[in-house]
Amino acid sequence: MTGFRIDALQYCNWSRDIFEDIRAGGLDAVHATIAYHEDFAEVVHRLKDWDTRFRDHGDLIMPALSGRDVRKARALGKTAVFFGFQNPAPIGSDLGMLAICQRLGIRFMQLTYNLQSLCGAGWQEPEDTGLTRFGREVIAEMNRLGMIIDLSHAGERTTLDAIETSGRPVAVTHANPRTWRDTNRNVPESVIRALAESGGMLGFSLYPHHLADGSDCRLQAFCEMVARTTEVAGVERLGIGSDLCQGQPDEVVQWMRDGRWTFARSGAAFPQQPVWFRSNRDWDGIAAGLYAVGFSKSDVDGILGENWLTFWESGMSTR
Amino acid sequence: MTGFRIDALQYCNWSRDIFEDIRAGGLDAVHATIAYHEDFAEVVHRLKDWDTRFRDHGDLIMPALSGRDVRKARALGKTAVFFGFQNPAPIGSDLGMLAICQRLGIRFMQLTYNLQSLCGAGWQEPEDTGLTRFGREVIAEMNRLGMIIDLSHAGERTTLDAIETSGRPVAVTHANPRTWRDTNRNVPESVIRALAESGGMLGFSLYPHHLADGSDCRLQAFCEMVARTTEVAGVERLGIGSDLCQGQPDEVVQWMRDGRWTFARSGAAFPQQPVWFRSNRDWDGIAAGLYAVGFSKSDVDGILGENWLTFWESGMSTR
Repeated sequence: MTGFRIDALQYCNWSRDIFEDIRAGGLDAVHATIAYHEDFAEVVHRLKDWDTRFRDHGDLIMPALSGRDVRKARALGKTAVFFGFQNPAPIGSDLGMLAICQRLGIRFMQLTYNLQSLCGAGWQEPEDTGLTRFGREVIAEMNRLGMIIDLSHAGERTTLDAIETSGRPVAVTHANPRTWRDTNRNVPESVIRALAESGGMLGFSLYPHHLADGSDCRLQAFCEMVARTTEVAGVERLGIGSDLCQGQPDEVVQWMRDGRWTFARSGAAFPQQPVWFRSNRDWDGIAAGLYAVGFSKSDVDGILGENWLTFWESGMSTR
Repeated sequence: MTGFRIDALQYCNWSRDIFEDIRAGGLDAVHATIAYHEDFAEVVHRLKDWDTRFRDHGDLIMPALSGRDVRKARALGKTAVFFGFQNPAPIGSDLGMLAICQRLGIRFMQLTYNLQSLCGAGWQEPEDTGLTRFGREVIAEMNRLGMIIDLSHAGERTTLDAIETSGRPVAVTHANPRTWRDTNRNVPESVIRALAESGGMLGFSLYPHHLADGSDCRLQAFCEMVARTTEVAGVERLGIGSDLCQGQPDEVVQWMRDGRWTFARSGAAFPQQPVWFRSNRDWDGIAAGLYAVGFSKSDVDGILGENWLTFWESGMSTR
């Protein structure tokens, strides 16, 4: 029997076709982003959009609040959908909003998205002084609420501060080692080591800008990178956060980049996915690639989902 | 004839009594704070509160949008009220909100209030990396809109960055020299010099925590400090921003300190004002104190309002 299969980050242009892909790919759970630059009122609308999807496609997907829901979803032959923010923008400077968002089903929040946030610095700021005073309050409250702290788009110092400060292990849900593809968006070895030593998790990204050779990255190269990372982190601390944005128009990546914080237009466009990961139907191929570089079944099951499940079961609210 | 008399920052518990004090004290204009930690929706309610005050006390006060309105107010025997934010919280991460706020009458905004904001660092953060990427966008847009950039609660590096980056001179509306009262809330000589060299303005504060000897500060000591500051900045770059919070309950200073960013309660209380500045009726006494330490009529008129008027006329939108 295949282990639980989990993707710790996607932002697809959700549709019945994509939910059918997810089922065909055997994904038991997916963490779906519902906010980049959105404020709280906009988040509420996005939650209603998901309520509509659960009504319309309840044979394929179900809302999920805890690790237990992943097991329930598998038993029902559905995919458990978790919600998260890639930016603390929806809570503004209001610590009490975390409990509100948690009750609405939010289980993940990045402390920063590219730029300086009220919690810390993003990887695109020229300097990073680590967690702010508010950032420390946010971590304590997320710990209390059982929300998973995500540092995927944070600066190095903010990430290391969060790992040290958090009372529960934290995650980088979607990034690769910087030694493999040199961009500040990927994680330096200091972060990989600190995550591993603290019981945190790193989710490997399949987004071309995070891959060596970008869209031309070969599956074997990706799997060899995963194997090398186990030497630093241990296989138990590794999973996948594909960052898959299937079917999204370029306006969406422009929104991610430009938000409302600048009048400049980046003109960003989505890069083409590597041929071996174009949709959620491709998970078996990644499993095969991992076997091909020498991983055992237990390792492959761990990387493709079991490790996330263990982490979520211990770090996420069971409410 | 007395020069124009302007206070560049107050947050009183506004009432007819206080507006009568303001008229008795001969104040032609006051910049009134309408947001500390409030979001945009709350700001709109505060603007409606002011609409009510203008309806109820239109014989004493009038809304103001430009330096010209100060002259109009004097001709009408009223006090011109300007609006400002002490924190960029109401605009969130949305650059387009500045034009919205400007059209609603906001003419001042601090880039930070004590803590890290999306624009820069406040004086209470342990480190300050200066303006953020968003902060630079905000400055350009405030320059374009004719909104006055205020750094009163900012860290030193953020303040110096803003002075250097802004295309128009900026202000520290309410702070004193750190050499006189050593608190990071007051401004170091580096900031006073940079403000003066760039055509910016420093407004002296009459809030006890910013005064040498606090509530026991003597008027003469305050006026001697003003005289010493002219040696660094030149008299034309100096005004008053009293930070007067007359009639406010301690819950208000607790809101200023604690906002919603922490669950901890500071238990802050308003300090007692020095005996020589308890209300807006005391402006003549400050004028007398400035004369007593040797200032000329033109200097006193400049410090008590004419310098702000010149600065506002050149830096503020005339719409």
